[in-house]
Amino acid sequence: MAIACPHFISSEQTAMEAARVGPPPSVQSPPPVTLTQEDLKKIAAYKAVEFVRSGMVIGLGTGSTAKHAVDRIGELLRLGELHDIVGIPTSKKTHEQALSLGIPLSDLDSHPTLHLAIDGADEVDPHLNLVKGRGGSLLREKMIEAACEKFIVIVDESKRVKHLGGSGLAMPVEIVPFCWKNTAKRLLQLFNDSGCDAKLRTCGEKAEPFVTDNGNYIIDLFFEKDIGDLQAASDAILRIPSVVEHGMFLDMATTLIVAGKKGVEVINKEV
Amino acid sequence: MAIACPHFISSEQTAMEAARVGPPPSVQSPPPVTLTQEDLKKIAAYKAVEFVRSGMVIGLGTGSTAKHAVDRIGELLRLGELHDIVGIPTSKKTHEQALSLGIPLSDLDSHPTLHLAIDGADEVDPHLNLVKGRGGSLLREKMIEAACEKFIVIVDESKRVKHLGGSGLAMPVEIVPFCWKNTAKRLLQLFNDSGCDAKLRTCGEKAEPFVTDNGNYIIDLFFEKDIGDLQAASDAILRIPSVVEHGMFLDMATTLIVAGKKGVEVINKEV
Repeated sequence: MAIACPHFISSEQTAMEAARVGPPPSVQSPPPVTLTQEDLKKIAAYKAVEFVRSGMVIGLGTGSTAKHAVDRIGELLRLGELHDIVGIPTSKKTHEQALSLGIPLSDLDSHPTLHLAIDGADEVDPHLNLVKGRGGSLLREKMIEAACEKFIVIVDESKRVKHLGGSGLAMPVEIVPFCWKNTAKRLLQLFNDSGCDAKLRTCGEKAEPFVTDNGNYIIDLFFEKDIGDLQAASDAILRIPSVVEHGMFLDMATTLIVAGKKGVEVINKEV
Repeated sequence: MAIACPHFISSEQTAMEAARVGPPPSVQSPPPVTLTQEDLKKIAAYKAVEFVRSGMVIGLGTGSTAKHAVDRIGELLRLGELHDIVGIPTSKKTHEQALSLGIPLSDLDSHPTLHLAIDGADEVDPHLNLVKGRGGSLLREKMIEAACEKFIVIVDESKRVKHLGGSGLAMPVEIVPFCWKNTAKRLLQLFNDSGCDAKLRTCGEKAEPFVTDNGNYIIDLFFEKDIGDLQAASDAILRIPSVVEHGMFLDMATTLIVAGKKGVEVINKEV
């Protein structure tokens, strides 16, 4: 799968525009800008919102990076620079955020096709395959992002990996709560050759199971090695009866926006 | 896929033994026996229970045919002809039935491997592929029946079809409730060439959505034509993000017991 059209933009310049931090620097001696990971997330998010046009139906992502994009869309609506936007939120959390910003909302039943979705990712491989769902919203995200004409993924540079699972962080699998231990065992058996570990996601002081917006549990998979053929792995996971969805988003992203310390890169997937 | 070892048993004889109806017939002039569909279900169920041995962990099916098998296991335990049985129920309904019969119960987390499961089916094709789940318990049934060494399917002869979907009755798909209309549309698109219709399963006077034991909805698919490659159809359905499970049980049954007006047939799948 070939990747085309990388565009680079000075991250310092964009940081200034996007984050609106302080007065413009002097032409003679620009002060050094130290960009935090949060700045990079914001830069990527603001760049993505440049693709939004009035009248569009937009999938609103979930997570610390996507949050900046939703904020920015709300700001542009308030300023009158955008109008007639319909937002489709990918989680209850994003629904609340968008409501508080006055973004008109709807759902997939009323708008089965979206013009654009903007969301973050936990990992991105060189073919624009993603791992998502560490925030726990993978199912609704996948439903909505599978229904859009253009899907822009926004990340800071720390999220790029050579192969999915390569960051050593979790690849989540959403499962029905019924007999979850058995499901975890079956997932482990599936990836026996990839040095896999499987853990029920918990939350709170009592380490209660984390429950998704759909009332399900999440098993986090951790891989020591490359899992190889991703489509085959995806089908094998989905064939386990109690699996609802997994966090690999294969062949879905159309554009990747990466903010790094050296600038912003826009990568369009070749069709 | 070849099918081996059909065994025929006189259904009249078995009906007498199994259903325990009245005194044994006179040797000279056996009275004519008119078997109802309910009798046939009972005959198949009782025949299946002959495979149960003391000490086994047994998957207990759900539905009008499986109910007879659960009743029979309870009876044999009470009579002392079976002991040390552990039952794994495939639904809340079967759980209640088995409890009332005094069958010791457990779950997949405690017993990840079962010796045997006995369950009915809505359709059986010549390769022992099944449609199940018209009773709404397809997910738990599939979880449990995927974990057993031997899976005996019990049906009356009306359930045999040339190809799955061939009875014109529903093939159920369990989905998350969130934006179910969109999911129904995606399922329809998938089987556009098979003359497919898709309906949300409802219940009660107000036609409220039927809710499964796992809190999900069911879309019933109806096909006018053969859907062709079943494994490809299965994977395509499972790839739709909001699908939890579907009612095709492919390559899972190891034995089929069919009760018909001419007798009982036991068909073992060739390994």
